[in-house]
Amino acid sequence: MAQPTAVFAMGYGPNGFEELPLPGVPDLDAFLSRPASVRWIDVRGVADRDLLSTIGERLGVHKLAVADLVNVPQRAKSEAYEHHTLTIAHMAAVTPSTLQIEQIGVVLGTDFVLTVQESEHNGDLLEAVRQRIRAPGTPIRTYAADYLAYALLDAIVDGWFPVIDHLSDQIEELEATVLQSPSRTTVRQIHMLSQTLRVVRRHTWPLREGISGLLRGDVVQLSAGTRVYLRDVHDHITHVVDSVDTYREFAASLMDLYLSTVNFRMNEIVKVLTIISTIFLPLSVVAGIYGMNFHTDVSPWNMPELGWFLGYPFALGLMALIAAGMLAGFWWKGWLGGKRADKAGQIL
Amino acid sequence: MAQPTAVFAMGYGPNGFEELPLPGVPDLDAFLSRPASVRWIDVRGVADRDLLSTIGERLGVHKLAVADLVNVPQRAKSEAYEHHTLTIAHMAAVTPSTLQIEQIGVVLGTDFVLTVQESEHNGDLLEAVRQRIRAPGTPIRTYAADYLAYALLDAIVDGWFPVIDHLSDQIEELEATVLQSPSRTTVRQIHMLSQTLRVVRRHTWPLREGISGLLRGDVVQLSAGTRVYLRDVHDHITHVVDSVDTYREFAASLMDLYLSTVNFRMNEIVKVLTIISTIFLPLSVVAGIYGMNFHTDVSPWNMPELGWFLGYPFALGLMALIAAGMLAGFWWKGWLGGKRADKAGQIL
Amino acid sequence: MAQPTAVFAMGYGPNGFEELPLPGVPDLDAFLSRPASVRWIDVRGVADRDLLSTIGERLGVHKLAVADLVNVPQRAKSEAYEHHTLTIAHMAAVTPSTLQIEQIGVVLGTDFVLTVQESEHNGDLLEAVRQRIRAPGTPIRTYAADYLAYALLDAIVDGWFPVIDHLSDQIEELEATVLQSPSRTTVRQIHMLSQTLRVVRRHTWPLREGISGLLRGDVVQLSAGTRVYLRDVHDHITHVVDSVDTYREFAASLMDLYLSTVNFRMNEIVKVLTIISTIFLPLSVVAGIYGMNFHTDVSPWNMPELGWFLGYPFALGLMALIAAGMLAGFWWKGWLGGKRADKAGQIL
Amino acid sequence: MAQPTAVFAMGYGPNGFEELPLPGVPDLDAFLSRPASVRWIDVRGVADRDLLSTIGERLGVHKLAVADLVNVPQRAKSEAYEHHTLTIAHMAAVTPSTLQIEQIGVVLGTDFVLTVQESEHNGDLLEAVRQRIRAPGTPIRTYAADYLAYALLDAIVDGWFPVIDHLSDQIEELEATVLQSPSRTTVRQIHMLSQTLRVVRRHTWPLREGISGLLRGDVVQLSAGTRVYLRDVHDHITHVVDSVDTYREFAASLMDLYLSTVNFRMNEIVKVLTIISTIFLPLSVVAGIYGMNFHTDVSPWNMPELGWFLGYPFALGLMALIAAGMLAGFWWKGWLGGKRADKAGQIL
Amino acid sequence: MAQPTAVFAMGYGPNGFEELPLPGVPDLDAFLSRPASVRWIDVRGVADRDLLSTIGERLGVHKLAVADLVNVPQRAKSEAYEHHTLTIAHMAAVTPSTLQIEQIGVVLGTDFVLTVQESEHNGDLLEAVRQRIRAPGTPIRTYAADYLAYALLDAIVDGWFPVIDHLSDQIEELEATVLQSPSRTTVRQIHMLSQTLRVVRRHTWPLREGISGLLRGDVVQLSAGTRVYLRDVHDHITHVVDSVDTYREFAASLMDLYLSTVNFRMNEIVKVLTIISTIFLPLSVVAGIYGMNFHTDVSPWNMPELGWFLGYPFALGLMALIAAGMLAGFWWKGWLGGKRADKAGQIL
Repeated sequence: MAQPTAVFAMGYGPNGFEELPLPGVPDLDAFLSRPASVRWIDVRGVADRDLLSTIGERLGVHKLAVADLVNVPQRAKSEAYEHHTLTIAHMAAVTPSTLQIEQIGVVLGTDFVLTVQESEHNGDLLEAVRQRIRAPGTPIRTYAADYLAYALLDAIVDGWFPVIDHLSDQIEELEATVLQSPSRTTVRQIHMLSQTLRVVRRHTWPLREGISGLLRGDVVQLSAGTRVYLRDVHDHITHVVDSVDTYREFAASLMDLYLSTVNFRMNEIVKVLTIISTIFLPLSVVAGIYGMNFHTDVSPWNMPELGWFLGYPFALGLMALIAAGMLAGFWWKGWLGGKRADKAGQIL
Repeated sequence: MAQPTAVFAMGYGPNGFEELPLPGVPDLDAFLSRPASVRWIDVRGVADRDLLSTIGERLGVHKLAVADLVNVPQRAKSEAYEHHTLTIAHMAAVTPSTLQIEQIGVVLGTDFVLTVQESEHNGDLLEAVRQRIRAPGTPIRTYAADYLAYALLDAIVDGWFPVIDHLSDQIEELEATVLQSPSRTTVRQIHMLSQTLRVVRRHTWPLREGISGLLRGDVVQLSAGTRVYLRDVHDHITHVVDSVDTYREFAASLMDLYLSTVNFRMNEIVKVLTIISTIFLPLSVVAGIYGMNFHTDVSPWNMPELGWFLGYPFALGLMALIAAGMLAGFWWKGWLGGKRADKAGQIL
Repeated sequence: MAQPTAVFAMGYGPNGFEELPLPGVPDLDAFLSRPASVRWIDVRGVADRDLLSTIGERLGVHKLAVADLVNVPQRAKSEAYEHHTLTIAHMAAVTPSTLQIEQIGVVLGTDFVLTVQESEHNGDLLEAVRQRIRAPGTPIRTYAADYLAYALLDAIVDGWFPVIDHLSDQIEELEATVLQSPSRTTVRQIHMLSQTLRVVRRHTWPLREGISGLLRGDVVQLSAGTRVYLRDVHDHITHVVDSVDTYREFAASLMDLYLSTVNFRMNEIVKVLTIISTIFLPLSVVAGIYGMNFHTDVSPWNMPELGWFLGYPFALGLMALIAAGMLAGFWWKGWLGGKRADKAGQIL
Repeated sequence: MAQPTAVFAMGYGPNGFEELPLPGVPDLDAFLSRPASVRWIDVRGVADRDLLSTIGERLGVHKLAVADLVNVPQRAKSEAYEHHTLTIAHMAAVTPSTLQIEQIGVVLGTDFVLTVQESEHNGDLLEAVRQRIRAPGTPIRTYAADYLAYALLDAIVDGWFPVIDHLSDQIEELEATVLQSPSRTTVRQIHMLSQTLRVVRRHTWPLREGISGLLRGDVVQLSAGTRVYLRDVHDHITHVVDSVDTYREFAASLMDLYLSTVNFRMNEIVKVLTIISTIFLPLSVVAGIYGMNFHTDVSPWNMPELGWFLGYPFALGLMALIAAGMLAGFWWKGWLGGKRADKAGQIL
Repeated sequence: MAQPTAVFAMGYGPNGFEELPLPGVPDLDAFLSRPASVRWIDVRGVADRDLLSTIGERLGVHKLAVADLVNVPQRAKSEAYEHHTLTIAHMAAVTPSTLQIEQIGVVLGTDFVLTVQESEHNGDLLEAVRQRIRAPGTPIRTYAADYLAYALLDAIVDGWFPVIDHLSDQIEELEATVLQSPSRTTVRQIHMLSQTLRVVRRHTWPLREGISGLLRGDVVQLSAGTRVYLRDVHDHITHVVDSVDTYREFAASLMDLYLSTVNFRMNEIVKVLTIISTIFLPLSVVAGIYGMNFHTDVSPWNMPELGWFLGYPFALGLMALIAAGMLAGFWWKGWLGGKRADKAGQIL
């Protein structure tokens, strides 16, 4: 799964800008030797661990921080080291059918930012930041490395909003389905949605904690000005986490509604069918009685109805009467639905 | 959705008062150049972002704060900036059929308050504050800008009480419905109510956090006196949040009660119908037996009843006996309701 | 609902005591002008807001505190103002059929206590405190105003114990009912009890928070000695809140037990009835077979049983055999209850 | 319920030891006048409140602390007073059928420990501590009063372990019952167990809080060395509380498992019975058809089967075919269990 | 259960290394007398309490710490003593059918680490650490005792990952089973999995707390450098706890899905069977009617159909018509499944 490792670099400041790939260690050394206010080294793919170790060494990144960058997946977090701060986050890309989540590590030093992406799938989230740096005269060039780290985290967190919107759409569709035409697969769809919400929560909740930690902690690389911006990122990720929690409650509520609806329909079926059975059983008994073979000739008490002039119509009429009586009784109890059911305050 | 932007201003102090619309930037500049103890600039509609940026610049509002004012919806919050404090809140207006929620941002500076409403729908919540300012000699004119901010937040929070009352009414109606005449739509009504409660909670919970933050934090614009008033606002929003939590529990409890009631009625139907079935099946067998065609003439053992003088009454009596016996048995078991059911401690 | 306002006063100290009603403001002024170590002004009914405002002014009570005293219902709380401390609490009076809850506000100043009751219904809770003050030479006369406030809060909190006891009795009765003779109304009784528990919790939980606040906060009016006593009040209210939480869990557990019991009985009914149906259906088929009209004369294969000497007993015997076989089968499966069911580890 | 009050005393130090009953106040005074490093006054039964007040006075115990010792039941807690610390705890004694819980109050002064037990039922929990003191040369005699208080709390907390073990056994038995042979009373057993767990939790949870408070707070009577020991007691009570919480979850899980199992068996019964009904109904119709009385002589179309040579076997064969066909259909759908059900992935 | 006690020792430093078993106390004394930067004494099995006490004494380990090492099982925790720090943890070994959990105590002194394992079952978790020490020139030899403690805790915590992976596999299998072919044992499998998750949580949650305590507390034996490494261990155990919590939610969700699926299938069975019953009952009545014995000769109204030329085909046709009509009705209601059911938005 691990992607081949590719390294790209940007160096910029108020007075200059360069962007280049760094195919090997010598290129890196050359890049580091050239003056720049801020250096952004962007590593894509974590397969080449030796290269990553070397990059870490040249930038003075702690061994454990490098290990966290390379070993995917890690839990999202922010950790202050002596000379730099490590933030592990997850980027999401949502397609109609899947949700791809990928790790990105951001190391903020005094004059550099090192980003390590698990692969390039979601790399375009950072493309907007690159565009802003490339445009000459944009304010970002005048800020220090901490602003770049903010801009990257902002892009990463904002990348979760389409996921939230997608989930919001899905949950509204599911609600419509449950209310109008629940089907056998609905329960699985709700289950799958809950599962996705659990996954999203598991990635965004610790990210919020991490960013909280950055804000609370005494991270020396963060200027007071950038802290204000980072608070904004914290608001955004809080919004994501809140939404996920609300959707989780909603999904649970949908499941209840669904089960209640299914129950109602089942009850309705059983009721209609049972009513039919109940009406025809007494009729069957009446027919059975006049099918008995008592000898009518030995006694006037033995089934005289059989010899009546209107015996058969009498029997049919008796049946009709019974059926009508039972129907009337059911109607009176409100079991047949309709106006009477409303009056009797019945539901079934 | 974004409304065209309209700007209104009030300037006042112990000795004077003016109220005017600010159709353009020059009007704003003129207004700001005139002396006033407190200035309230009230923006309605967030469509004209350029205008809002300009207003923000003139008042020295931080770029991020302006972004929060303009980008709706934001999560409710309070954030201290160097020269001012931003509070994002939501105003609610309840109609018999809908609940309209709209964002309002309140920026408190040393001598001004900037409010930015998403639209004018709920703007009349603030009209009471305007009336108090307009009346000459009212105490509000003698207080600083922080008191105005308090008065606005108070009006916004108090605007949630009708929502709470409306929800309280709805939940009581629903309880009556569930206890007296639950219908098929009741489950959806409970679901909708739960959904509304989730929405209200989502807007009021962070608002409480925000106001807590204002009280706890070292917001320099807030005087000790106003802090006491703000504590009152905090009490009110806490009351709202508490009520919503109680109603949420109540709604869950109603759902359980409803399902239990529906279950009871279903059980009752199934029981009555099954009892009828059970009584008539044995009768059917008796009738079937005397309908068998065994030749009575080949043996005295072959259905001698058919030749009895009272054979038919005997058969009918047998049936009546069986039916009466089963009914008695059911009655004894308490399945027919009535006194015996009470004695037997039966419910069904 | 608001009661007409009546004002009563007590002034006492180690050396003296007076108790009098204060029908008007001049009486109040006179009372305040006479020397006394501790003054207790007890207002019953909140209808006369002007009078309450005046009392507040004379005692130097903050406008917001007066508003909280007058506007019922408020959430229970304790709030420190510059010159006094406001505590809002709720008093409960339980009768066999209802639970009456009424607000009381207690304002503790340096040398006075102001209590404002919503009405006089539960006023006798405070009567015991009055008796202690009236008795000459009781220790309470030697303490300061904070001890009086403690004594009042103690009486208010202890007033919740009968409610808790009543609820405890109710829940035990309900448990007995559910275990022995659940009826259709049991579910509503559990629902009503849960509802009452929610109400009690809503009033006692914030009261505990309020008293916690008094203990934690730097309320200057509270001496270290009285703080120790107040900790006792805190223990009591914590006991109440704990009990309510335990009862809430118990009520939820009772609901589950009830539903499970109802389910069991329903299952039992359905099982018995279905067993009867299942036994008689095959018998019906046998009877039907021998009621077929095949011409026995055209072939020896056509229902020769009809001509057998013991054809009818054979048919009846066949039926008996089938019925016995099915009963045996059900017994063996343990569906008929009794020993076999125990052996087979069956429940139904 | 209150037991007659009996008082026992122990006085000890590195150089001496005495143990005696204190039947009256003069004995107490004599005991207190004799020199001893540590005095343990052990009161059993709280009926004689006057005696307890006198003991409290002689030892300088706060009035409120004495009230807490005497008024049972109190919530478990630890409270620091100026000259001593009060700990209220509950002791448990488990018998096969009941769980007896009794209050004990431990007052730790600078050179004494006062214990007040509700009765003597569980008093043997403390007997082990007495034995240790009685044995000459044991380390406990060389420690101060705080170590004695620790030893007593340790014995009290360890007294909960048999309860936990008993509950653990019960829950394992219940699990076996639910999995193997659930019966109608199982649901009540689970309910009773949950109820017991709630009771245990209610007594141990605040005890843990209380001991936490002792550790955290600035209790001057506790030496640093004893604090380390007390941390051990805290670990034990935490273990108890954790176990109770785990068992509570387990009990809830057992209830679900039980209901699911009952449901399964009910479903099985309904299925088997319904299958039988469904098979015999069509047979009944076939028999009914050939029992119709159409005149075969008026038309060759009128029931010619009746006159067939093999008419009766044909009818019986038709019935057998229908029954076999339905059985095959049910088997194919996997409703009859067996291999086919496994292949079709069916459960019912 | 207690294993015979075996003691192994390692002494190492930048310049030397020795590894030897310590069969008796003299060997221990000799080992302690030889110089070494770091000493690791590894005790396997806790049967020989005297030996453990002696080891504790020689190393200056607190009596209570020794008691915690010996008494298994203890709750996981970290506790600072004056001269050393005790950590109690649990090691897990997962086999296809069982989960073995064993206690290990780690005592960190200034220049030694004492580990006490409950038995040797899971001892190979520490073998990797031994290998690292044995290899000459590895960095671990240059670090102090705290690094060794870290390395051991790291190995212990990482030993939980296979457990997590195993549980993850199990839960995915169970999900597939529930979605594709739920069987009667599925509910027990989910129950067992939940039970295992509860056990794992109970062991890992306090371990995380313990490691948090190490990080937060002022443990003098821990250097700042090792603290950074320990933070990594904390991340890992947090990852474990998070996973367990997610799996627990998932298991609860699976149970719901399972019950819903079982319910669906039951409903399907009842529906199909009931439809069959409902269709055949009216047919039975028709057959019964034409089986009545009314004398056709006494009246033209008495069952003239019996004498019709096409009487029998008429009766059969009537039956077919009724059956077809009922089927059509059911189809129209969507109860037969198929396209119509989809159109009608029916689920059952």
